Amino acid sequence: MTARIVIVGAGFGGLEAARTLRGADAAITVIEKTNHHLFQPLLYQVATAGLAAPAIAAPVRHLFRHQDNVTTLLAEVTDVDATANEVRLSDGQVLPYDHLIVAAGATHSYFGRDDWARFAPGLKTLADAFEIRRRVLLAFEAAEKEADPAKRASWLTFVVIGGGPTGVEMAGTLAEIARDTLPGEFRRIDPAAARIVLLEGGPRVLQAMPESLSASAQGQLEKLGVEVRVAARVVGIDEQGLEVQPAGDAPRFRIGSHCVVWAAGVAASPLGRQIALATGAQTDRAGRVLVEPDLTVPGYPNISVIGDLAAASSYLAGHEPRPVPGVSPAAKQMGRAAAANVLRRLRGAPSQAFRYRDYGNLATIGRNSAVVDLSTPWRRIEFSGWPAWIFWLFAHIYFLIGFRNRLVVLIDWASAYWSRQRYARVVAALDPGMREG
Amino acid sequence: MTARIVIVGAGFGGLEAARTLRGADAAITVIEKTNHHLFQPLLYQVATAGLAAPAIAAPVRHLFRHQDNVTTLLAEVTDVDATANEVRLSDGQVLPYDHLIVAAGATHSYFGRDDWARFAPGLKTLADAFEIRRRVLLAFEAAEKEADPAKRASWLTFVVIGGGPTGVEMAGTLAEIARDTLPGEFRRIDPAAARIVLLEGGPRVLQAMPESLSASAQGQLEKLGVEVRVAARVVGIDEQGLEVQPAGDAPRFRIGSHCVVWAAGVAASPLGRQIALATGAQTDRAGRVLVEPDLTVPGYPNISVIGDLAAASSYLAGHEPRPVPGVSPAAKQMGRAAAANVLRRLRGAPSQAFRYRDYGNLATIGRNSAVVDLSTPWRRIEFSGWPAWIFWLFAHIYFLIGFRNRLVVLIDWASAYWSRQRYARVVAALDPGMREG
Repeated sequence: MTARIVIVGAGFGGLEAARTLRGADAAITVIEKTNHHLFQPLLYQVATAGLAAPAIAAPVRHLFRHQDNVTTLLAEVTDVDATANEVRLSDGQVLPYDHLIVAAGATHSYFGRDDWARFAPGLKTLADAFEIRRRVLLAFEAAEKEADPAKRASWLTFVVIGGGPTGVEMAGTLAEIARDTLPGEFRRIDPAAARIVLLEGGPRVLQAMPESLSASAQGQLEKLGVEVRVAARVVGIDEQGLEVQPAGDAPRFRIGSHCVVWAAGVAASPLGRQIALATGAQTDRAGRVLVEPDLTVPGYPNISVIGDLAAASSYLAGHEPRPVPGVSPAAKQMGRAAAANVLRRLRGAPSQAFRYRDYGNLATIGRNSAVVDLSTPWRRIEFSGWPAWIFWLFAHIYFLIGFRNRLVVLIDWASAYWSRQRYARVVAALDPGMREG
Repeated sequence: MTARIVIVGAGFGGLEAARTLRGADAAITVIEKTNHHLFQPLLYQVATAGLAAPAIAAPVRHLFRHQDNVTTLLAEVTDVDATANEVRLSDGQVLPYDHLIVAAGATHSYFGRDDWARFAPGLKTLADAFEIRRRVLLAFEAAEKEADPAKRASWLTFVVIGGGPTGVEMAGTLAEIARDTLPGEFRRIDPAAARIVLLEGGPRVLQAMPESLSASAQGQLEKLGVEVRVAARVVGIDEQGLEVQPAGDAPRFRIGSHCVVWAAGVAASPLGRQIALATGAQTDRAGRVLVEPDLTVPGYPNISVIGDLAAASSYLAGHEPRPVPGVSPAAKQMGRAAAANVLRRLRGAPSQAFRYRDYGNLATIGRNSAVVDLSTPWRRIEFSGWPAWIFWLFAHIYFLIGFRNRLVVLIDWASAYWSRQRYARVVAALDPGMREG
């Protein structure tokens, strides 16, 4: 009998799971709440006007057009009934499944301060990226019109909260916009005088990287003109700016800004807690579901949770299990592993434990600036600066889905590199309101 | 003394006026209420997911970065004080001028039925284009989810109101999306079965063209699968569809549709009536300001009105004055002429009457389909089909501003042509609300 497989989410994990099931005797339904798969590693380029949205987004159903066993559904899953083996959609529709793979991803977390969201948007969706692009570009416009020097300085102050890869990319690129792209275009302000601040609560940026690369990244940021403040915790955000508490005895201070970007906290999709309630599974502090070694939910061998929604471990014979990081290669690998386990189950074979292959870590900072921590079978290789940037560039273009997008992205970048211009400096609607939800 | 010149609007007319003043001893302020110049002839491509927005939009201040006598201001002009020689902005700021060139353009007109706007968006801004793209793509998604055949047929019915160039382009391209782009991607519906209706109140489509080309355009549309209904007047639009009154004795009929595009009426910017009030000038039925032969407002030689906001005539010695059509080449020519007259006035020379050079008319219908009516010094040349389409293609690429955009547009089109795919099938936010207020 044809197995009914439901996959929730068409991010890296869900997409890879469905692709792995190509050719299987299965009726697969991929449910995604937007109409597109998003190449999230480049979303910051859309937010900073370097790329147009279609360059990093492809319609989900287009990606599956040649895979006949997949039906794509634009819908949102509100809950999973693990007893009845059904998912319920927000329009009330109910979908039965024999196997369920949940890859609903993560969203931002404001650590209980959701009121900060209005003043400091995060970066997860295209709508988020458009909103940040709007704020950045309109801040320069407002500064050009402002006569009062103090107010003008506030408009020209940009703050990024969180020193992970997204925060580092955003801060570096904002500095480039101010120093390289905009000068010469304004008559009353000097965009190059803009202040870009990167705030990190922990002791260093890029904490997933070796310490030497964190130091290199901070140095490269500072060379671009970014003010990096580590061990600095944000304790308040409002329309006029934010309040920062440095570690130790240093007094609190205030930064006036109308353009603050949140790159600090990540929380699993609310579906994680719903699944935990329905199955008795545990969740971690970020709301991720603790899964078995084979990525299934304890007691429910027909429900897998993968990607950013899963608190998973990697198993290698003779080694301690290691937690799997929330990065896109891990999501892809989990998608492949979960789908392979579904195929094993369909033919009555036992499932296998997931093993994460760590190829390393890389982060870009700006033009010619990046850090790479490569994991090879022999040893780890660290490098930074221009070679790291070239490596980062080609790795990302390679992984962008579809030849069409790769070519256009390459042209956009080549052109941006030579001209120091940014292609997508367009604000479609001046008022906010484009953000989802 | 340096002359203060204010230009309202950075469409084709305003842009060309400012460029003509390059090198003049003038302090020029270009006021535009969006941050970009829009290549409007290709806006339908953004609405139909063929192009990304940045391919046809460039930041105004970027276009003037090398023209030192221009200051760009992102602002909206609310009124003109022709006695005090000042314009007032929506933020209360007041800007004095010695010469004023108003090129504020046009918007849609619903002929007094503004309540139809919600159900049948028009196509003038990028936000409009995103809204239409959203409705088109989500209609197919809704049809895929709809079990009831009658409701599904409504979702798969697309209606374009107005058989001018925009309506013809929209209808033709919608047919292509349904017949060429989407088939194979849905599992429950056949997108090729979608019904595309083009409604025109007058006796034929493309009424500005010779009759033979109207007939050819209608034939090409029908070949693409568009149902063309001329002499059919829309008398009602609501959430479920629209009510049509054919000419003569034929009874009214209803078309069920959730995706209706308004390409019927154009009205001048409200600034036209405000200027008329302030100066005693006349406006025509569309709200355009009746200008003198030199494009100035009667009695106000330091105020010019150009582009879609002007009801202007073309003067050629020995001929009757002829009305200037509302097309982009005319706007550009008026911009050049008005600026040249400002320069003449600055050196005390008399102004000259405007003469419109008519190079002809062209409209595209779809892949390989277009009509061209070329005006040469010797005779008019009419052609249609593939040669007309190639002509249209190169004419539009040539006129797109900036090498960068031309190249990307060419690649997007070449790729779309060969693959029959459309690049920009992305909906950033599923709810409406992206349209400008």
